[in-house]
This record gives sequence, structure tokens and C-alpha cells, in this order.
Amino acid sequence: MEAAIALSERGRGLSTPNPNVGCLIVRDGAVVGRGWTQKGGRPHAEAQALDEAQDQARGATAYVTLEPCFHLSARGPRCADLMARAGVARVVIALRDPDPRTDGQGAGHLRARGIQVEMGVMAKEAAAAMRGFVLRQTLGRPAVTLKLGLSLDGCIALRDGASRWITGEAARAHAHLERARHDAILVGGGTLRADAPRLDVRLPGLEDRSPRRLLLTRGDAPEGWEAVAQPEEIAALNHVDHLMVEGGASTAAAFLRADLVDRLLLYRAPIIIGGGLAGIGDIGLSDLAQAHHRWTLTDARQLGDDRLEVYERRRGA
Amino acid sequence: MEAAIALSERGRGLSTPNPNVGCLIVRDGAVVGRGWTQKGGRPHAEAQALDEAQDQARGATAYVTLEPCFHLSARGPRCADLMARAGVARVVIALRDPDPRTDGQGAGHLRARGIQVEMGVMAKEAAAAMRGFVLRQTLGRPAVTLKLGLSLDGCIALRDGASRWITGEAARAHAHLERARHDAILVGGGTLRADAPRLDVRLPGLEDRSPRRLLLTRGDAPEGWEAVAQPEEIAALNHVDHLMVEGGASTAAAFLRADLVDRLLLYRAPIIIGGGLAGIGDIGLSDLAQAHHRWTLTDARQLGDDRLEVYERRRGA
Repeated sequence: MEAAIALSERGRGLSTPNPNVGCLIVRDGAVVGRGWTQKGGRPHAEAQALDEAQDQARGATAYVTLEPCFHLSARGPRCADLMARAGVARVVIALRDPDPRTDGQGAGHLRARGIQVEMGVMAKEAAAAMRGFVLRQTLGRPAVTLKLGLSLDGCIALRDGASRWITGEAARAHAHLERARHDAILVGGGTLRADAPRLDVRLPGLEDRSPRRLLLTRGDAPEGWEAVAQPEEIAALNHVDHLMVEGGASTAAAFLRADLVDRLLLYRAPIIIGGGLAGIGDIGLSDLAQAHHRWTLTDARQLGDDRLEVYERRRGA
Repeated sequence: MEAAIALSERGRGLSTPNPNVGCLIVRDGAVVGRGWTQKGGRPHAEAQALDEAQDQARGATAYVTLEPCFHLSARGPRCADLMARAGVARVVIALRDPDPRTDGQGAGHLRARGIQVEMGVMAKEAAAAMRGFVLRQTLGRPAVTLKLGLSLDGCIALRDGASRWITGEAARAHAHLERARHDAILVGGGTLRADAPRLDVRLPGLEDRSPRRLLLTRGDAPEGWEAVAQPEEIAALNHVDHLMVEGGASTAAAFLRADLVDRLLLYRAPIIIGGGLAGIGDIGLSDLAQAHHRWTLTDARQLGDDRLEVYERRRGA
């Protein structure tokens, strides 16, 4: 299942309107098929993996990060049906599909066809890899990552706005890779004017994975950009399950104030700026106690001289 | 030598005007004597360890973090002499004494008495443990640690000044332990007025190790406090080899601006304040490039929910 989840990550930022599912088919201890939901959502991971496995799918075990779909679509076949017809003997599923059109019916169909089904294997990890889809189904909005490049004292620039560079090359390359894993990127008007960021993916081989560019503004957006008047409007964005907010301080604060940040990507450089521009503006906090128990460190690594820390928002079950 | 350095740490913040030396005496694979420079500087580590070893020092090996002294003092005997008379066979020394009154003469005396001497073993680590003494000898001032308790976004308080609590109990207990390892603590007038910090050591068994209290002010200091008009004045403080600066933002900035901070102790809580009071004020930085390559991460650990990161100032050799 871990390998299937890794496959699912390949589709992140590409697969909307479909979830970025991963699928691995194993027979007699050997991998005979691998798939992940492709650009635009088709083919599905299972269809791709079965296509690779061909006749070897018969009697095999399929590992899939999300319950195979069982609702009719004009865009392609039902995966539960495909699996049954291919003669798969066993299907191990991480996450039950929260989409009410499937929601248990995919597993039910497989069982009715005599296939052994296990559901809930590494469900938490799979949900994290498909968090955009999960939040879209549960909260009706995309998953939001707030990315900041900070000094030790929490600044994103000198007082005069100079911000090149705080973090080093390895951290910036990592941030570009993260961009490629999001459907859209959002900045505020101040950042657009000050930095004129291209917000594309400048990594060899990933140039075509540059996400859509959104601007938080009550006015119009320039060419190549889409306007978002306020953070809550991201719920209405089509085909955006994973959104990355890149600043500046007011934009970061607006999303935090609305409790619309699920994940913090903090790239921290071992420098002190002192009296510079803070990375996060006023979020309306009036009591320190309320600031606690909201964030959990889920990843930390060294990137050159800099340190990446990933925090996730703790939310009730 | 590692054990001798650990012993030397016991005297840190207590041993001035003498360096916090550690000494271990080993004979036939067993520790027969241990010593560290005591409160007020006497007895010296070697004298204490030899006293514990008694006759067993004969033919033994002594590990000492600093070259045994060889200058006459009204306060006590010369350690190089004591060692020779005790019949120690071998002396392993970490750091050559930079004090010109000894500076190689201690080792020379031992060798002249037929004792085998090695010098420079773990010198870097020993220098770090005795950094206050080393800086006092080389730069003519105490070693300065700047301690800050910060949010992820670099704040030390809400906009209204509320700062209880940012870090948790484990981090605060660790900070108290660090206080005990410093000869003096310094804060600015704003912090004194806002927090009225007692700046004592509130750890069981260490209450009597509360350091001297200094106030950065151009005016007079209240009772129980000593006034320091500007950061550079710390060079003139008697019996202060290890100084801890505890803020606030202007005081931290004043010491950083004067390049008088050798070590950063950053206790970072996993909270976002957003638009709060920054931990470090204006340090006069005009070019981001100058901020780089100044700090090296030397320790990082989890303290409850918080994270401690220790950075040391890189200085030319």
C-alpha cells in the first residue's frame, strides 16, 4: 500500500477533477501493474494498472488508495467493474470513497463477484496523499498549503522589501517541486507588485506542471491570473483540490484568520534579519491559549543550509 | 576527555574568576579522581581530583580540559606542581592555557619532571565548554548567549504585550537550567517593566545558582540589579564570563548590532501569533547577503511541544 500511495503522489496537482489515486497489482510476489490517475482525471489509476497487467491480473492482488468507483460516467468505465472482469482475486483498499455515488458500493460490487476485499489499510496515509479530494468531499473546499521562506526571526524581507535571497537553492528547488504538486498558486497584490513572481515550476522536466495562478484581490486580475476576492471563495474554484498560498504577510494572515490553512511549509534560513517584514500579518488572535494545540509537526528536513518544517492543522475527528 | 569536559560544565556559571575546568584521573582503567573548579574559582579542578585520588594518583593518567596552571597565586597552589608531586605518569590536556602567565609553561613543567604530556585532545569541545574564559582571554569580554522564546512566526508576545505562555513547561525548565550555567542575566528596561522578571533559577536544588541581574539602561538600576549603559560595557564586568541576554527585542537587537552574541538559544513553540511583537528589533542590516554564513546550528532537540535550536556565531579562526 505504501507503494500505491507513492504512485498516487505522482498525480497530485494533475488529476482534478478526479482524486489522485494510486494502484499497484501484485501476483506471486511480483508487481505486474502500476497506475495513477492521469492528467485531467482519466484514465483512472486502476484502469491504467490493469492495462499494464493484462492477463496477469487474473488471480492477483490489487492495492488501491481509494475504493474503486462504481458510478456510471460518460468519461470512462467503472473501476470496480473492470477489476471484477479482469479476474482480480483480492482488492486491498486504503480509503473508502466519501463520494456518495460510490461510498461502499464499489467494495460491495467486488464482494458480490466473489472477490476478497479489505478496506481501511493505511487509510490515514492515503487520505494525506489525497487530502485535496478528501477536503473537497468533507469541507467542500481545496486543501490549502501556506508556504513561507523565513529567517530565524520570522521575517520574509528586509524593511525595504528586499527578499532575494533568504533561503538557498535547495530550499527553492524543493518549493518548486511543491508547486508542481498543487493545482493552483495564490498570492496577494502586494507580492505580485513587489516580486512580480512568475510562480511557475522551474525544474527540468516539470515545466509543464506549472499550476494556475490566482490573485487575492477585490479588483481585476492581470492577464494570466484569476481574481479571488476573499479566501472563502476558493471553495468555488473548479478543478482546484490542492492550493498553495505563497504570501505575502496579509494574504497569509487572511487565510489563517479564516482557518483555511491545512498545512504549513516553512523554509527557515539560519539568518537573522531583525526589524524586517514579518511573514504573517494580524490573524486576530486575542488570547495566547487559543494559539496552542493547532499545529503538529509532521516532517522536518535539512535542505542545504536551510531547514524545512511541515506542520499540519489539527482538526477534530 | 569527554567525561572531563562534562565535569567542567558543572562549574559553568560558578567558577569565575577562574575558568570552569574539569579533571578526571584514571588508573588501571578505573576512575580514581574527579574534579571541577569550584564556586569562586577554588579549589581548582586538578586539586580536587588529586585530593579524591590520594595515593592512587601515583602512575595514573590525568585528563584535564585546560593546561594546568603554573603561575604563582596567593589563592592556592600551582596545579602543574601538584600533579608532578602526586606522581601522575601522564597528563592529557584539551586546551593550551591562553593566559600568558601559563601559556605552555604548565605543560613544560610537567615534561621537565618526566611526565608524559599530550595537548590538543578535543580542544574544540573543551573550548566550547569554557567559551566564556576563552573569549575573555581572546576578545576581552564574556561569552554572550541570546535566549528567545518564539512562535513559528518569530513573535515573543501578542501586540498587546501578552507573552504567557508561548513555550511550554519543558522549554521553560530548560531555560532555567541555562540560567544556572551563566554568571549573569541581562534584560532591557521594557522587559523589566512589562514582565518584572525575577530572572532567578526556579529548579529544585539549583535555587542558589541564580545569576547576577543586569539591566541595559542609561539610567539607574533598581535594587538587586546592576546598570549596563550599552552592550560594549559588558567587557568591564568583573566575574562575568558567561552572560545570558533574555530580551526584549530592542536589547536583543542592540547586542546583535554590536556583534556581541556568540550563541542563540531559540525555544520555538508550534504556534502562530500573526502580527505580534517581533523577537528581534532593527539590527541595522541593509543587505541580505551580509546576513548569511554567520550562524551554525549546533544543537536541536524537542522539549515537549517546543523545539530548541542552538546556533553559534561563526567567527574567523
